[in-house]
Amino acid sequence: MFSFDLQATDGAARTGVIRTPRGDIRTPAFMPVGTAATVKAMMPESVRATGADILLGNTYHLMLRPGAERIDRLGGLHRFMNWDRPILTDSGGFQVMSLAELRKLTEKGVTFRSHIDGSKHELTPERSMEIQKLLGSDIVMCFDECPALPADEARVAESMRLSMRWAERSREAFGDRPGHALFGIQQGGVTEELRAESAEALTRIGFDGYAIGGLAVGEGQEAMFGVLDYAPAMLPVDKPRYLMGVGKPDDIVGAVKRGVDMMDCVLPSRSGRTGQAFTRRGVVNIKNARHQDDPRPLDEHCTCPACSNYSRAYLHHVFRSQEIISSMLLTWHNLHYFQEIMGGMRAAISEGRFADWEEKFHADRAQGDIELL
Amino acid sequence: MFSFDLQATDGAARTGVIRTPRGDIRTPAFMPVGTAATVKAMMPESVRATGADILLGNTYHLMLRPGAERIDRLGGLHRFMNWDRPILTDSGGFQVMSLAELRKLTEKGVTFRSHIDGSKHELTPERSMEIQKLLGSDIVMCFDECPALPADEARVAESMRLSMRWAERSREAFGDRPGHALFGIQQGGVTEELRAESAEALTRIGFDGYAIGGLAVGEGQEAMFGVLDYAPAMLPVDKPRYLMGVGKPDDIVGAVKRGVDMMDCVLPSRSGRTGQAFTRRGVVNIKNARHQDDPRPLDEHCTCPACSNYSRAYLHHVFRSQEIISSMLLTWHNLHYFQEIMGGMRAAISEGRFADWEEKFHADRAQGDIELL
Repeated sequence: MFSFDLQATDGAARTGVIRTPRGDIRTPAFMPVGTAATVKAMMPESVRATGADILLGNTYHLMLRPGAERIDRLGGLHRFMNWDRPILTDSGGFQVMSLAELRKLTEKGVTFRSHIDGSKHELTPERSMEIQKLLGSDIVMCFDECPALPADEARVAESMRLSMRWAERSREAFGDRPGHALFGIQQGGVTEELRAESAEALTRIGFDGYAIGGLAVGEGQEAMFGVLDYAPAMLPVDKPRYLMGVGKPDDIVGAVKRGVDMMDCVLPSRSGRTGQAFTRRGVVNIKNARHQDDPRPLDEHCTCPACSNYSRAYLHHVFRSQEIISSMLLTWHNLHYFQEIMGGMRAAISEGRFADWEEKFHADRAQGDIELL
Repeated sequence: MFSFDLQATDGAARTGVIRTPRGDIRTPAFMPVGTAATVKAMMPESVRATGADILLGNTYHLMLRPGAERIDRLGGLHRFMNWDRPILTDSGGFQVMSLAELRKLTEKGVTFRSHIDGSKHELTPERSMEIQKLLGSDIVMCFDECPALPADEARVAESMRLSMRWAERSREAFGDRPGHALFGIQQGGVTEELRAESAEALTRIGFDGYAIGGLAVGEGQEAMFGVLDYAPAMLPVDKPRYLMGVGKPDDIVGAVKRGVDMMDCVLPSRSGRTGQAFTRRGVVNIKNARHQDDPRPLDEHCTCPACSNYSRAYLHHVFRSQEIISSMLLTWHNLHYFQEIMGGMRAAISEGRFADWEEKFHADRAQGDIELL
């Protein structure tokens, strides 16, 4: 019902397919973020058209508004948001620590007040499993705790061991749900020994997939790649590996190169709303006056609606005029570009030419944006 | 190249087709408003999918940002905004009086400062014709002046006569542009004699269509219908009649009943962004807590994406969460509903059953929204 077929490797990079009752997920996979039951500024059919096989939903946001029990009564998150393909939900652990107010952390879990209306809530491994079940999530994440980096090693170790105890409780509470997967989350900061200890603890418990958590939290790309040089290999080879919250295009490519199968990030959608477009040749800030008379598309090789039908001058105009279509078009473009990277890597890994693909990826970016007219 | 085929009448109501080189416009026609080169929160292909044959663009907004000369350099408004069907542009006259700062009105025209950046501009009949040509508008409106109602009759008469002199200058400046139409605008407030004088002046000049201006500016529906009881018949029977800036669904139906062929209004799109949905059974305020657990669509008979794929509970949630998809879905629904009214009226007029159609329209609305669950 839920399985992972690893189909090819090229160096440490891997490609395969995660099979679920709601459809296949081609890996390496990029998961757009649909925080509050919507990928911001996108219709779900448009998200699918960019090539996304799976979305991520945020437990913290959804439990507060509209509420997990309400979504359950309404038929689950898939039906609620009109997305019938797989959904992965995070555990709420990361966001409760970054967004909620008056947090109190104990062995049992976290109590906090909602950043929306101040109402009091509790998240524990058991409650997180319950919420993710109410949402109808296909891939459920263990409830964990994640310190911001840099943090001292003792704090990181203590936090990781708490997360491992919570992983055991999550596994217990999740129970047996055919067709649904539970992923463990490796912690341990940037310390190899702690990462190994965490991987061992998780593997002993046994999960359907393994996330690499606690990265992309302020440590920088070099430190992150440093961890990714050893962390993926600590995890079972026959299960998907998910790097949480990553990232920029070059972060994604570097992670796949090091053996990561899945990623998620708000970057393509959030940047779309602030006028930042990711292209083969790097980032374009559409608000810049250089675009105001430019009849050329963002990227002439891109087949997304923003590039097929509109000039940079139009995208500049609607951004400056604060028109909603600006967010719609740039988000679509960014998600399309991210999925194009994933598709390019999948094909390259299958055909054993990942190094060439990566070289071209970096060479294109090094060119910088097209010259002024 | 530009023509109007009046195909059927039923009482004063008319149905037909305006033929243009960019496609046919089925009448009675509702024109969504694409103020700043976008129908807010909609992709142009979605606007088309609602059944719109023609959009309205605003000269005042476009001349200020991004500028008419710039749009011309970029290939015209159709290409700029990715809408290849007909576009009607207003003359800028109405909006310069309602939005611009430091307006100064003379026989020659209006000088004013931009509400966006304070820059100084002038609009005259000649400049308005030039701008609308630069935009590539298919249906160009005469430059006119329109007093807010109520206004004393002397002021209305004086303003109307100025508009008639400007209509003559507009006709002169427009020249001969095959495939493009110029519409005159009848003024005269709520005074039958002034409306007759205006109609006579316009008919003497000769236009491809005639607008009824100076209504929907604060006079109320009863006074507006009072004028529409006589004004359309003053205009040539073989040319399209366009009621500017109207309106709510019942305004539209009442106007068509009285012989109007075309209308435009921001209401469906603006209301979509403020959580107001127009339905067969009247207005639904989606922010109301009564919808938060309601699994039913806005209107079970509606085939738009908002009604086909989402519950009221979802629409309520995304509105409350200020998600962009809320504006996207409700705008789509509203535009779809408005176009459905137009299609219903066209069919009813063709088949000589407009009175029955109108009775059902009002009976459905009188039911009010569906009962609480």
